[in-house]
This record gives sequence, structure tokens and C-alpha cells, in this order.
Amino acid sequence: MRDNLPSSICLDPIGMIHTPFQQASGTPIQSAMGGEIEATIEINAEYAAGLRDLEGIERLWLIYFLHRAAEPNLLVRPYLDPTERGVFATRAPSRPNQLGLSCVRLLRVEQNRLIVSEIDILDQTPLLDIKPYVPDFDSFPTSRTGWYEGRTGQSAVADQRFTV
Amino acid sequence: MRDNLPSSICLDPIGMIHTPFQQASGTPIQSAMGGEIEATIEINAEYAAGLRDLEGIERLWLIYFLHRAAEPNLLVRPYLDPTERGVFATRAPSRPNQLGLSCVRLLRVEQNRLIVSEIDILDQTPLLDIKPYVPDFDSFPTSRTGWYEGRTGQSAVADQRFTV
Repeated sequence: MRDNLPSSICLDPIGMIHTPFQQASGTPIQSAMGGEIEATIEINAEYAAGLRDLEGIERLWLIYFLHRAAEPNLLVRPYLDPTERGVFATRAPSRPNQLGLSCVRLLRVEQNRLIVSEIDILDQTPLLDIKPYVPDFDSFPTSRTGWYEGRTGQSAVADQRFTV
Repeated sequence: MRDNLPSSICLDPIGMIHTPFQQASGTPIQSAMGGEIEATIEINAEYAAGLRDLEGIERLWLIYFLHRAAEPNLLVRPYLDPTERGVFATRAPSRPNQLGLSCVRLLRVEQNRLIVSEIDILDQTPLLDIKPYVPDFDSFPTSRTGWYEGRTGQSAVADQRFTV
């Protein structure tokens, strides 16, 4: 499927995400369910200057490469619902471009390392970008969510269905 | 700088974002400031099945390639503040990996086209991923924002400083 597309965009990781989660089973399915477990984001030294001013920002968006995602599927059965859904209406990892998006809590900055909590990310995940969470831009507490409003599942942790 | 990193991650766009914004000057600096102007996201036909169940989801995250971003800088002067800040503490486009993140309002789905508003994206931007906005995962209305809380700028539209 990918070979039919006109051109590739190549990105180099800016760092590595180190977490206690070695496999998908038992990993929180969303960062908001990740609790107090801490993780360390190690930024490549050449990018460390870009971390200035992160202190005082409570939450960060991480965009990362889902390096252990299973082959992409356009229809998936998400954790929170037994019905097959379009993959772009879900946050399932097995998507055409394996990009992950998590809003984590920044605990502190130690030189080129960020200590964070509220994570849902597997160990050794390549990090592509960091952005500040800004409620003016990012917080829409009453936004409707379609199928998710009628979901029947209650799971807060993943299983192996979307990873290898 | 990029050549020193161990390995590249290559992604193929899943579609193209068509907007009325031909240049950065005058483009809203964040999607929340984009108002009612409409844009069309054209998804490559082979991915159209993945759009199922988007109807009823009020907002979507778009992750895209900032194809006209200027050369990356680790320190930038953002639109909303005259002080130089670490790029990862800002949403400036001229970042090491030129990934954009916007929360847009979904108006309707027409086959493989999504009609959206509240956009801050330049015309012909390559789209990499779509995810549903879910307040349970994404909405943190009281999250502190560090330097942004003390910002002195008021601009709602961009200029050319971060694009070519």
C-alpha cells in the first residue's frame, strides 16, 4: 500500500523515551491513565538547547514513532469497544503512519533529560517532537466523540493486539 | 545536525490539506484562532476505509509535515512573546522535525474528503495522520503553561518568520 504514494518524508528521532513498559500488555492505553509511574525522555545532546523554558510547563505533547506497532489496518477493534472502527476514528497504534501522540506530565528537567509521568508509551520508543500543552489551543472539554460516547469497554491497559 | 543521528524514519503522506492560506502572513497561528474559514482534507483513496466512524466526532487531531518551515532553530522568538525561547517550549514551525499538530473542527465527511474549520495550516500541506480528539485523553483546561502565562504578545496571525 505504501509504495503507491508519491514521496516519503524522512525524520530523524530527537531522542529516546525510556519507560518501565516492556510490552503492550499492561501498558496504559492512554497517558491520562498512566498515573504516577515515571519515565525518562533522553534528548540527543545536540538538541538540548531547545529544551530551554520547558520548566513551568505542566504538560507536554510528545509525538513519537510507534516502533512496535503491528501492520497497519484500516479497520480495527479498539480497546474500548467491540465494534470494528475506521482506524482514523481511533488511537490504535496499527495505523498507516505509526505516529503516537501523548500528553504527559512534566515533573522536572535534568540537563538533556525530561522526567515525566502519566505515560502510555513502550520502552525505547523513538521521539520525534515535543510541544507545550497550551489549554487555549488544546483543551476542548465538551467536544463530542462519536462512537467513543457509546463505548462499552472499560479497559485502562493494553493487550498485544496492535503491537509486535 | 541531522546527519549525526543514527537512523531515519520515513513516512508516506496519507493525503493533502487544501486551505485558503497561501502564505504564512495572515494565517492563524493556532487552529483555535482559525474561525469559520473552511478547508478540505483529501485523503488518498486507498486509505478512505479508515475514515469510517469519523462522523459524530467533533474535533480531529491532524499531524502533518510543515512543508514550508524555515531551517530549524533551537531558540526562536515566538509570535506571542519577544523573548527567545527553546523551540520545544513553543509551537514554532522551524523545529528539528517539522511536524505540525492542530485540533480542527470536523464539519462533514464527503467520501474521501473531510471538510473542516478552525484551521491554521498552509495550503498543500502533506497530512501524516488523523486521530480523534477525546476530552478524557486530551483536555486539561487548567494545565500551567510556563512562559506563555506571562506572554506580552497578542497576535492571532502569523508572519513569515518561520516559513519559506
